Amino acid sequence: MPVSLFSSTIHSGLFADEELMAFLGDASDIAHMVAFERALAKVQGKLGIIPQEAAQQILEKLQDATIDPGKLTAGTRSAGVPVPALVAELRKVSGEEAGQWLHWGATSHDVMDTAQALQAKACLAILAVRLAVVIDTLEAQSKHNGDLLLAGRTRSQVSTPVTLGYRIAQWAHPLIDAENALPDMQRSALKVQFGGASGINSAIAPNGSAVADALAEEFGLEAGPSWHVNRTPVLTLAAWLQQVCSGLAKMAGDLVLMGRTESAEVAAGSGGGSSTMPQKANPVQAETILVLNRIAIAAHAGLTAAADPAEERDGSKWPLEWMFLPQLILATGMALCHAQELADTLKPDPDRLAATLEANPEIMAETASFVLARNGVSRAQAKELVAEASRDDAPFAEALASISPVELDWQKALDPKEVIAPAKEMSARIFAKRVRRDRG
Amino acid sequence: MPVSLFSSTIHSGLFADEELMAFLGDASDIAHMVAFERALAKVQGKLGIIPQEAAQQILEKLQDATIDPGKLTAGTRSAGVPVPALVAELRKVSGEEAGQWLHWGATSHDVMDTAQALQAKACLAILAVRLAVVIDTLEAQSKHNGDLLLAGRTRSQVSTPVTLGYRIAQWAHPLIDAENALPDMQRSALKVQFGGASGINSAIAPNGSAVADALAEEFGLEAGPSWHVNRTPVLTLAAWLQQVCSGLAKMAGDLVLMGRTESAEVAAGSGGGSSTMPQKANPVQAETILVLNRIAIAAHAGLTAAADPAEERDGSKWPLEWMFLPQLILATGMALCHAQELADTLKPDPDRLAATLEANPEIMAETASFVLARNGVSRAQAKELVAEASRDDAPFAEALASISPVELDWQKALDPKEVIAPAKEMSARIFAKRVRRDRG
Amino acid sequence: MPVSLFSSTIHSGLFADEELMAFLGDASDIAHMVAFERALAKVQGKLGIIPQEAAQQILEKLQDATIDPGKLTAGTRSAGVPVPALVAELRKVSGEEAGQWLHWGATSHDVMDTAQALQAKACLAILAVRLAVVIDTLEAQSKHNGDLLLAGRTRSQVSTPVTLGYRIAQWAHPLIDAENALPDMQRSALKVQFGGASGINSAIAPNGSAVADALAEEFGLEAGPSWHVNRTPVLTLAAWLQQVCSGLAKMAGDLVLMGRTESAEVAAGSGGGSSTMPQKANPVQAETILVLNRIAIAAHAGLTAAADPAEERDGSKWPLEWMFLPQLILATGMALCHAQELADTLKPDPDRLAATLEANPEIMAETASFVLARNGVSRAQAKELVAEASRDDAPFAEALASISPVELDWQKALDPKEVIAPAKEMSARIFAKRVRRDRG
Amino acid sequence: MPVSLFSSTIHSGLFADEELMAFLGDASDIAHMVAFERALAKVQGKLGIIPQEAAQQILEKLQDATIDPGKLTAGTRSAGVPVPALVAELRKVSGEEAGQWLHWGATSHDVMDTAQALQAKACLAILAVRLAVVIDTLEAQSKHNGDLLLAGRTRSQVSTPVTLGYRIAQWAHPLIDAENALPDMQRSALKVQFGGASGINSAIAPNGSAVADALAEEFGLEAGPSWHVNRTPVLTLAAWLQQVCSGLAKMAGDLVLMGRTESAEVAAGSGGGSSTMPQKANPVQAETILVLNRIAIAAHAGLTAAADPAEERDGSKWPLEWMFLPQLILATGMALCHAQELADTLKPDPDRLAATLEANPEIMAETASFVLARNGVSRAQAKELVAEASRDDAPFAEALASISPVELDWQKALDPKEVIAPAKEMSARIFAKRVRRDRG
Repeated sequence: MPVSLFSSTIHSGLFADEELMAFLGDASDIAHMVAFERALAKVQGKLGIIPQEAAQQILEKLQDATIDPGKLTAGTRSAGVPVPALVAELRKVSGEEAGQWLHWGATSHDVMDTAQALQAKACLAILAVRLAVVIDTLEAQSKHNGDLLLAGRTRSQVSTPVTLGYRIAQWAHPLIDAENALPDMQRSALKVQFGGASGINSAIAPNGSAVADALAEEFGLEAGPSWHVNRTPVLTLAAWLQQVCSGLAKMAGDLVLMGRTESAEVAAGSGGGSSTMPQKANPVQAETILVLNRIAIAAHAGLTAAADPAEERDGSKWPLEWMFLPQLILATGMALCHAQELADTLKPDPDRLAATLEANPEIMAETASFVLARNGVSRAQAKELVAEASRDDAPFAEALASISPVELDWQKALDPKEVIAPAKEMSARIFAKRVRRDRG
Repeated sequence: MPVSLFSSTIHSGLFADEELMAFLGDASDIAHMVAFERALAKVQGKLGIIPQEAAQQILEKLQDATIDPGKLTAGTRSAGVPVPALVAELRKVSGEEAGQWLHWGATSHDVMDTAQALQAKACLAILAVRLAVVIDTLEAQSKHNGDLLLAGRTRSQVSTPVTLGYRIAQWAHPLIDAENALPDMQRSALKVQFGGASGINSAIAPNGSAVADALAEEFGLEAGPSWHVNRTPVLTLAAWLQQVCSGLAKMAGDLVLMGRTESAEVAAGSGGGSSTMPQKANPVQAETILVLNRIAIAAHAGLTAAADPAEERDGSKWPLEWMFLPQLILATGMALCHAQELADTLKPDPDRLAATLEANPEIMAETASFVLARNGVSRAQAKELVAEASRDDAPFAEALASISPVELDWQKALDPKEVIAPAKEMSARIFAKRVRRDRG
Repeated sequence: MPVSLFSSTIHSGLFADEELMAFLGDASDIAHMVAFERALAKVQGKLGIIPQEAAQQILEKLQDATIDPGKLTAGTRSAGVPVPALVAELRKVSGEEAGQWLHWGATSHDVMDTAQALQAKACLAILAVRLAVVIDTLEAQSKHNGDLLLAGRTRSQVSTPVTLGYRIAQWAHPLIDAENALPDMQRSALKVQFGGASGINSAIAPNGSAVADALAEEFGLEAGPSWHVNRTPVLTLAAWLQQVCSGLAKMAGDLVLMGRTESAEVAAGSGGGSSTMPQKANPVQAETILVLNRIAIAAHAGLTAAADPAEERDGSKWPLEWMFLPQLILATGMALCHAQELADTLKPDPDRLAATLEANPEIMAETASFVLARNGVSRAQAKELVAEASRDDAPFAEALASISPVELDWQKALDPKEVIAPAKEMSARIFAKRVRRDRG
Repeated sequence: MPVSLFSSTIHSGLFADEELMAFLGDASDIAHMVAFERALAKVQGKLGIIPQEAAQQILEKLQDATIDPGKLTAGTRSAGVPVPALVAELRKVSGEEAGQWLHWGATSHDVMDTAQALQAKACLAILAVRLAVVIDTLEAQSKHNGDLLLAGRTRSQVSTPVTLGYRIAQWAHPLIDAENALPDMQRSALKVQFGGASGINSAIAPNGSAVADALAEEFGLEAGPSWHVNRTPVLTLAAWLQQVCSGLAKMAGDLVLMGRTESAEVAAGSGGGSSTMPQKANPVQAETILVLNRIAIAAHAGLTAAADPAEERDGSKWPLEWMFLPQLILATGMALCHAQELADTLKPDPDRLAATLEANPEIMAETASFVLARNGVSRAQAKELVAEASRDDAPFAEALASISPVELDWQKALDPKEVIAPAKEMSARIFAKRVRRDRG
């Protein structure tokens, strides 16, 4: 059992997202908290709230400051948050004179929430690109497989035919919704935090909002009132991450089913062998996406339980964000990576796809009912005729032809290829939802 | 133990939301499904997809149709969804001829998801008004109590002073975020569903999108591609409801703490007595909001587990929406009702509020540090001086005056009233976030 | 959307457990609370704590007392619990004189927790019988299908062969664990509650424990100290119910997979048709078990969030038990009913079962490796030979025979029937775990 | 944001459990899997299933084998589990000849589940000792504070008096239940796993159960049938860990409330200062226990979602155990450590405790009612008299004396000290539940 699947070397091939992890962990946390203190000094220097020289010195001295995480352990144990210990260290680095003006009017929440928003912003930039490329790939695959018939399944039973292209478009659908929601979500989630001890900037009144606005500008974060105990920004981010994971799990779950030995209609990814069965090709990456989605669900639920902090600050809930938000980010990140590889390597087996359709001619039963009804046969009678034809040993179209009260080209009427056009149209409607954005 | 707290007569005073329940339950479900079938016939008649006369007859015959829920029980048991049984009943009502054209090209998901969207829309209209009025009330209370000092609490300890007005503004903050997010959420969540058996409208191709668009128009729902297995609309709605509950729980949790016997700083609501202790006034409504929030959290988590349905339809996940979405709606509805009553009846006790401040003069320790620092005393020395003054038996301002190296009007410098202006400013920034909308 | 799936008439065929519901809901709640008050009077009369005549009169007057739930609504709204209002009503029924001695030294928690324990006990008696019969049925089916080969599946891929009998034994395995755990669980969960206002029976000291013990005796519940804020009994019950649901979901999930059109190896239950596709037989009952398990999971998670009540009583957590415990009980009850019907109606299709084995001769690859290794071929070489034989167009046994360096009866060595004996042995070991109890 | 709170250096003072972590992580995982392979060879050698010399060589060569986790990364990525890659490495270490007999008849699940059980066993041994010592300490503290009156609180309101000793006994109550449940839980949870590819030991039939039994003996684990897809052992362990966390959260939550500035009745632990408010002493350890409990709740919920694996093995659920079980173990471990320090350092403030009682004389209202009733005053009248006395400006006992229709020593009758005896008795009943075990 690893301390965390996300940091185990053994499991790193499936769970370690190195690109994202550059923005998580002790070193990144310290770097972003230092960035906050520097920007605060810069901004307060400019606004004349602290002496210009002190600001300048803080900016310079902290530029390359690296603080050993171990130096913050005792202080974090005592305070519950690393900020007091970090500020003490940074004052030493800044020099006694300038150090007094460090962290001026700020509180732990300001430092940690802003750092968290910056880290989330960096991670979201990565996730957004990954998400866009996954959707791009699915769109290409959907088009590429637009004519490939697939026996649709509802409630685990073969139902009416669709196309593989449409199935793939369905995978993209929740991801497109997530992509479209991203800009609004970021505006809600990526907020600067600056409120001071009890959230009202009393120590530097009446300059609180000027500092907050300048910090937002400095960091490219959203400005606004302090939100120490309004965790909507975090909930909004978490819900979005979970929705991406759910969307990817839809695709992954379908791929597991499509890759079952008895279907083998579509393969994808680099499945692995077992320790004793040489012939197997396990859908490891699709399964891992399902695992990551369940991790995201649990982490999300954990976060919602922390969303009503007491009074001006709540030490019994806040740390849950540090536990669960990274899990959500990492789960989403790795799920996107695996999804990309699956999308890239989709290998439909046209023979198996066709075989299922052939083995289930009654798949056209619904169509037959509609054709009969459209030609004046009552529903009740149509249902009976279709049932009778289904029981017949002869091929379905022939059986229908022989008992149908109306003369029709049943071969053509029951050709599953008729669904290709509507499948393409529905797929196109799905991809048309996408709000194109400059991805510079 | 009730079958459901929401439907128990005993618990109805705290849990039964009659206004919302008009849009939930068997009768409403049937009525909304019938509305779907009528609108479908109307639209398909207009578009010439089914015979005009049949459409007309369906519209008329189903206008006042009431179907006994008991007639759907057996069919729902067999099919997992009530639609086939309902359609069979409605065909009887419509007459044999017209009945054939009922439910033309539709599938169970179309009927139930559209009905669900309509019900959610009706409920959201109610919730939106309640939410707006709660925020209005909190804004009025925040202004009304803008000068009332309150000892801020961080991590359950008295920290720096704020005002009751600001505390109330903090309660409104997540609610304002939710109100601002409502229009976008509704656009994402309240979608018409129309895809037919496997989601591509193959049975009525190429008229699928025309019908879907017309239905959307008919119902005032969003148009778009079918979303049988893209449950983002439901997730988006659920996340929003949960955020409202969390926001209300923040207020409720604070009120429980403020009403503790040893604080008794603010009372609210109509608290009840106990079976044996006549003097008690329990914060029943605030507690109930906390209960409702935890119900919402569990329901929300339950829903996220259902958000990756398999293939074209998944009978093992879909019914979870029928279980958890109403719980989320009802929890939010009742939480808003209780919150409204709490907000209306806030009774601060100025004496108790003042007593806490007096009992904790060190509450101004932070301010003292800042004043010293701003007057050239080094941080380290300032900290020591403040600590020394705190230990002194004399009043804090006097003690400081006697040891401060700089001469200052300490009485004024340490007057907690200084926080009123910044508290008002921060409160104003919170309420200024509100995007005013016509509430016609 | 129903207010609760468990009380909807439409959905009652799949979700309404009438046998259990006799012990849930307003009428049952009131009856069990009245039973508590009667027993309390009886016991306290006997022990001389209240006057014998008062006890006698309470016993008689309350014997057939039926209290309208509506009379408790206002009181429950005010107090958060129905007990004060109920006691007031019961005092009226008892007469002024005797009524004073009603509820003597008791508190709301005592009444409600004991009633809850009694209701849970009644429900568990039903569930225990159902569970036992499901296991009995699975044992019979396991034996009945002990010789029927089934292609095992690991990670969704055909792996080595097992038997249907063994697969069924695996379904029984978690249920047997639950059945074995039941007596201990009941001892932990079904406890009388009697502690008075703050849990120490101060009002009737030193008679508290005598009364508690006599009440336990009276009700057939476990005696012990008061547990107002130690919710371990509830957690223990909830975890057990959730484990039963998980166990049943294992069986249900497998049946959904085995019943997929492309497998169709085993059918079960009375699947239903769709609204438009006459040929379908949906696994509605198996799916419903999966739904019920997810409901149980969410309810269980909701309960764990309520397991650390504050101080002597916590109104913000306690009501969550009334919400989630019935959901857990009802979900378990219905899941057992559906499982029973599935177990009763298992219909294996021997041809389809055999066809899968034939279509996947490499299923014996592992066996071939072991045979080669046992006969002195190195593992590396064995792996190569097996892979080579797998790629060969000839039947697997023939291909192996032609390239194997050791002479062997490959036909016999690769006969999947060889697994029947070990499958039977492992199945027997599973059923042997069962601790037989008199079910009188 | 740390990758995991449990492995961050910054947060290690509150979240890193070094004693437990010795049994978690890559190195421990590999060591325990190697231990499995060695024991398997040993046992199979003894039983004559593999050649004695091969067994001997495996035992020797693997004795000091250390495998670099990095060597398993690629293989784990491919197979989803580290076992195939590990076995390949161990075969190299064992030598070609002996290596063939390594892992004979075993499957990945056998290796990983047995290793997990061994690691859980080691962790439980540590947790059991910690739990016992916490209970010991609470028992001592309960006795030590048995005479110290405490205003009981129900629903956040001062209710009737109890003692601090009884409050502490309530904290111990769920922990005693957990301790008593431990032996049974371990018997259910700590099972050897040995079933081979599809769980029936077909490759080494008919020796499967002999090997499984011998392995159980070797490891001190429970014997029994294979349980690849019966995850009851894991659920049982998880539920127990969560119950311990809930129990500790009860104590922690109470301590946060008791340590609020306005109560300050009991302090505990080494609280920390804030970055800007020198006078504060935050209840960091109690808050951290609440955080750990919420982590445990989320992890537990995550695990229950993985408890119905499909068919013979399910790659989409199994890895969730590796994610959530360590979190549960680590959360429980650290929660116990913090609880121990809190229990060791409980500092009641007798003056503050007494002050609350004095400030709330109506706390004796219930007692007054009972005294009146016991002396023949009707309940209705008693209630009125008590209410009248409560409103009186005179001390409660005096007010009562002046209006009571019966003559009584009201001073004595209303002395809160009367609760000490029943509080001690109830505390004693709680601690008497403890099943003493030899702790060797």
